[in-house]
Amino acid sequence: MLGLGAFTISGVIEARRKEMDVVGATAVAFITAVGGGTVRDVLLDRYPIFWIQDQRYAIYIFAVAVVSFYSLRSARLAKSAILIPDALGLGLFAVTGATYALESHASFFIALLMGVITGVFGGVLRDVICNEIPTVFARTQLYATCALFGALVFMVMDRAGVAAEVAVPSGVIATLALRLAAVRFNLTLPLPR
Amino acid sequence: MLGLGAFTISGVIEARRKEMDVVGATAVAFITAVGGGTVRDVLLDRYPIFWIQDQRYAIYIFAVAVVSFYSLRSARLAKSAILIPDALGLGLFAVTGATYALESHASFFIALLMGVITGVFGGVLRDVICNEIPTVFARTQLYATCALFGALVFMVMDRAGVAAEVAVPSGVIATLALRLAAVRFNLTLPLPR
Amino acid sequence: MLGLGAFTISGVIEARRKEMDVVGATAVAFITAVGGGTVRDVLLDRYPIFWIQDQRYAIYIFAVAVVSFYSLRSARLAKSAILIPDALGLGLFAVTGATYALESHASFFIALLMGVITGVFGGVLRDVICNEIPTVFARTQLYATCALFGALVFMVMDRAGVAAEVAVPSGVIATLALRLAAVRFNLTLPLPR
Repeated sequence: MLGLGAFTISGVIEARRKEMDVVGATAVAFITAVGGGTVRDVLLDRYPIFWIQDQRYAIYIFAVAVVSFYSLRSARLAKSAILIPDALGLGLFAVTGATYALESHASFFIALLMGVITGVFGGVLRDVICNEIPTVFARTQLYATCALFGALVFMVMDRAGVAAEVAVPSGVIATLALRLAAVRFNLTLPLPR
Repeated sequence: MLGLGAFTISGVIEARRKEMDVVGATAVAFITAVGGGTVRDVLLDRYPIFWIQDQRYAIYIFAVAVVSFYSLRSARLAKSAILIPDALGLGLFAVTGATYALESHASFFIALLMGVITGVFGGVLRDVICNEIPTVFARTQLYATCALFGALVFMVMDRAGVAAEVAVPSGVIATLALRLAAVRFNLTLPLPR
Repeated sequence: MLGLGAFTISGVIEARRKEMDVVGATAVAFITAVGGGTVRDVLLDRYPIFWIQDQRYAIYIFAVAVVSFYSLRSARLAKSAILIPDALGLGLFAVTGATYALESHASFFIALLMGVITGVFGGVLRDVICNEIPTVFARTQLYATCALFGALVFMVMDRAGVAAEVAVPSGVIATLALRLAAVRFNLTLPLPR
């Protein structure tokens, strides 16, 4: 829920930058928050989709969006405040995406990919709707790579027979740790352009 | 069908503004017309999707798109001509979206949301493809709110036991009336920015 | 596979033009390559989606994307090098899209449309993500029309009882031939604007 809230707030921030009103900002925030999980569910044929099955997700997201729309004064401040919940959400989405893919009998590589898609696609949809090139593709600071790393940690432990109660939090913490390190030390991929 | 035609024409208008040729305009018009219903069917796992099951939708949309591409002279005139069919289409899409969601055992709030998504998502896709920020999110004149209102009127009547033969047209008329009032009196949401 | 590779490279070219790094370029290339087939599978309710069922598609696309990202020096040279594989891919996607639609009991017109969607939608998604109006809608040189022509040739032969071993390559070659002719002679639709 913390992660969903962080994704919601990142949608509101972007929508405000585009001078949308509260209806537009709420819509963009909703798409940012549920986009990754929705694409995952559609690709894996998992129905009913998580937010259609349980309306509490949508109500929570709408509440966070409206409150943050009216209380946000500084986008810079908000961005640093959501850094940790956003990284937690990224990790949790990456691990659940990988888990669901494995449940659907996807192979190792595809499950990894599905973890990354689940983690980052909400942000991609947000940027496409706001008429920007997706920051996750353009930014050099590690982001998608953190989702990939967390999903990988989870899956290696899962394959090694580690219980889900240990493997899931390990994957989430791995994502969080790498993401915070990336922001703190301005890490970029050690690859030529 | 009137509503689909209006959505088609709004796609052609936008495509012409972007200087597309007849093929591009027809493609954008098709996506505008069927986009909302397609997203609804995919999210609710309703297959076959309505326009795949019955090819008459697609043939009708293509015919309207080509005719309007060559006969449109004034976008301003066309916009005022499609105002009523567009509002009718919005209302009908909103009510059918809510109906189908209820049939899929979605909760009240999700059914409302699905009504709005069905009504407005074709226009969102049109604007994303034409490289614009979706007007439905940016515009202050009521639009998404009209779909929400119509879906709400329908659902309250439906829950109160009113027959579909009365509840469906009531929802459509509620959308139409609010939309026309919004355009006539330039209504905006009575909310601070 | 040649076609997938060509679509991948066209994604890398566009991503480089937008100054993305290797992660972004690979993501855009992947979406370009599998986008059309994924939209087709989701619309037709064909699960598991082709690249989720068989991970070799994704591995191949990622390998081509990384190699071409680092070896591309001239976008102009690359574009002419991928012209033939791209046209082959377009034809193959168009014919398989039509085939799968027929298997799902879609009507003639819808199967044609599904062929075109399968052929061109990867490029549409690429352009939307890269914040451009889809070239397939904007360009005047024939492209979508070639997919339509190839799907039509295949379907007419199929309906006439010609074996798939003949009808499929005929459709692909029809697409290829029309596309190469369009580039060679700068063909545009013989229609007024």
